[in-house]
Amino acid sequence: MTRAYNFCAGPATMPEPVLSRAQDELLNWGRSGASVMELSHRSPEFQQIARNAEQGLRDLIHIPGNYSVLFLQGGASTQFAAIPMNLLRGKRTADYVRTGIWSDKAAEQAARYCEVRIAADTRATGYTSVPEFSTWDLDPEAAYVHYTPNETVNGVEFDWIPETGDVPLIADMSSTLLSRPIDVSRFGLIYAGAQKNIGPSGITVVIVRKDLLGGAIPETPIPFDYQVQNRDASLYNTPPTFAWYLTGLVFDWLKGQGGPEAMAVVNERKARKVYEVIDAGDFYSNRVERNCRSWMNIPFQMSDTSLDSVFLSEAEQNGLLNLNGFRAVGGMRASLYNAVPESGVDALVAFMKDFEKRHG
Amino acid sequence: MTRAYNFCAGPATMPEPVLSRAQDELLNWGRSGASVMELSHRSPEFQQIARNAEQGLRDLIHIPGNYSVLFLQGGASTQFAAIPMNLLRGKRTADYVRTGIWSDKAAEQAARYCEVRIAADTRATGYTSVPEFSTWDLDPEAAYVHYTPNETVNGVEFDWIPETGDVPLIADMSSTLLSRPIDVSRFGLIYAGAQKNIGPSGITVVIVRKDLLGGAIPETPIPFDYQVQNRDASLYNTPPTFAWYLTGLVFDWLKGQGGPEAMAVVNERKARKVYEVIDAGDFYSNRVERNCRSWMNIPFQMSDTSLDSVFLSEAEQNGLLNLNGFRAVGGMRASLYNAVPESGVDALVAFMKDFEKRHG
Repeated sequence: MTRAYNFCAGPATMPEPVLSRAQDELLNWGRSGASVMELSHRSPEFQQIARNAEQGLRDLIHIPGNYSVLFLQGGASTQFAAIPMNLLRGKRTADYVRTGIWSDKAAEQAARYCEVRIAADTRATGYTSVPEFSTWDLDPEAAYVHYTPNETVNGVEFDWIPETGDVPLIADMSSTLLSRPIDVSRFGLIYAGAQKNIGPSGITVVIVRKDLLGGAIPETPIPFDYQVQNRDASLYNTPPTFAWYLTGLVFDWLKGQGGPEAMAVVNERKARKVYEVIDAGDFYSNRVERNCRSWMNIPFQMSDTSLDSVFLSEAEQNGLLNLNGFRAVGGMRASLYNAVPESGVDALVAFMKDFEKRHG
Repeated sequence: MTRAYNFCAGPATMPEPVLSRAQDELLNWGRSGASVMELSHRSPEFQQIARNAEQGLRDLIHIPGNYSVLFLQGGASTQFAAIPMNLLRGKRTADYVRTGIWSDKAAEQAARYCEVRIAADTRATGYTSVPEFSTWDLDPEAAYVHYTPNETVNGVEFDWIPETGDVPLIADMSSTLLSRPIDVSRFGLIYAGAQKNIGPSGITVVIVRKDLLGGAIPETPIPFDYQVQNRDASLYNTPPTFAWYLTGLVFDWLKGQGGPEAMAVVNERKARKVYEVIDAGDFYSNRVERNCRSWMNIPFQMSDTSLDSVFLSEAEQNGLLNLNGFRAVGGMRASLYNAVPESGVDALVAFMKDFEKRHG
């Protein structure tokens, strides 16, 4: 098999030009005589790689100067702890909006450090909607408001940003960052595991407003103290250098594609093509309300669940990989991140139509 | 420049056959149609990669069955916090042996979680020796005893294992693991950042005796709770999949070299060649006592420090990279990890002799 179309929710497919470039220079980067992964993280060569990556991200989503950009380890799951550890700043409570499995996990881990108030919740209705902002029970004394603009498992995505006034807004953008433009200035902190639209797994981007730095509780492991990593340009300890380098290549590639503004047009169209097949009849279904269906992650079911394994194995034979749903949910899911080409979506749509014709 | 000899202390040089193999399959692993970094961490393909890597390490250092092997993120600097968070188990104090910059950092971070007792210390004499075991002030009530068998910056290495009885012995083996045989059964926990003898930066190996699991304090971020990661085979959250894969390739390569037993013979000889040049006259010096000189990291000075920059730039022109000392220490340092070929050491030794002839 040559390279297939890969709909994995993460670690996700990478842009092929990025992999090809990394392959070309894997044994000898530039004229350094060494692989990027063999460069000292303190060397001028790596510092240049690191700073270029940061600038690439700053350019792509227009990050204001009063925000720090950190490249950390540990994934979003570590940030679920690091956020309360760093941002409680003496406050006792934090507000969490629960719209899927990942915001639930974020709230669960935060409860180890503070009183978590669930300010809005769609669990009872199966995480198929985004709660109306007018119903949110926000506490003006909360340390922050946390939400998950795109739920990777449930396929629920906000197309609006809550207005939380003086209470900093925190967003887990792991599966939506760079897929469309965002106004960074509306947020106190944005974080994202790289393994969707940014790079390989093993590196995590944190974008934090600088006035929020400096309040970490003493129990915070130093590599996760935002103030320390801001001071040290994310080099307090040895960073995942090769993963960091790959993020820079992805940012360069994305600039060449026109950035999030251009990707939003493509991503909306890619998603629409799949939802149209799902909605065309009763064979496939997606339970998410239409005003908050994700562009990035599209879960879908067939009424006859015994067909799931047939669908998945035939898809794989047709070079359409990783269409299985999240392990705890089942069914199918197509993740359509930036690096999934539109030709891949066209192939998926054709396959879905053909499968329905044969089995419907 | 083609590939040079790289004496970096870490991220360190990788075995060239490992990089070549990774290069060959970077866009398409096996017949999967995807790069390793694009495989789901829950896929059978990646699970096989992960389990092979673990088994490779188990085979190389004969890890007993009552030890768990974890592959985590965050580096040794995160373990400096994770160890007290996981292993205090209700105790109030922990014993630390301070023999260099890294054991000092470990003790400093542990002091955020418990009372740290410095059981032995060579700071006053400049970290040039290993303290006699008979002088150690060990507390039988301590939660554990922590030491650093090889100090990467100071070039001090233990060639013996302390006997701490019922108090678990914890070792930061970042820069010595796999360089020689060890008796894992003497330890409660061994940890190592990968970026010396194991793989690229961004992945950390923790080998922990299973009876020590389960006591994490509530403030422990879940991805660093050993019990949780043991239960989930280090897949509680998305692991650094590509780095994990590379560790497996390194373990395979090392098996082919004859394992730590064979490497110890080579490593002793490589180090001896460099120490012999240093000791042959007054031009170079190394201040570490001869009974504890590191095989892995050899710091050295010239009496005329104004020659340092000349040495380093001429070395680089000769394809001998990263011989600068640790930033806070200065001077020179040659790190001779497993993947530094003996031909590289021979080239270094020839260069040092020639440089002395011209400048001595």
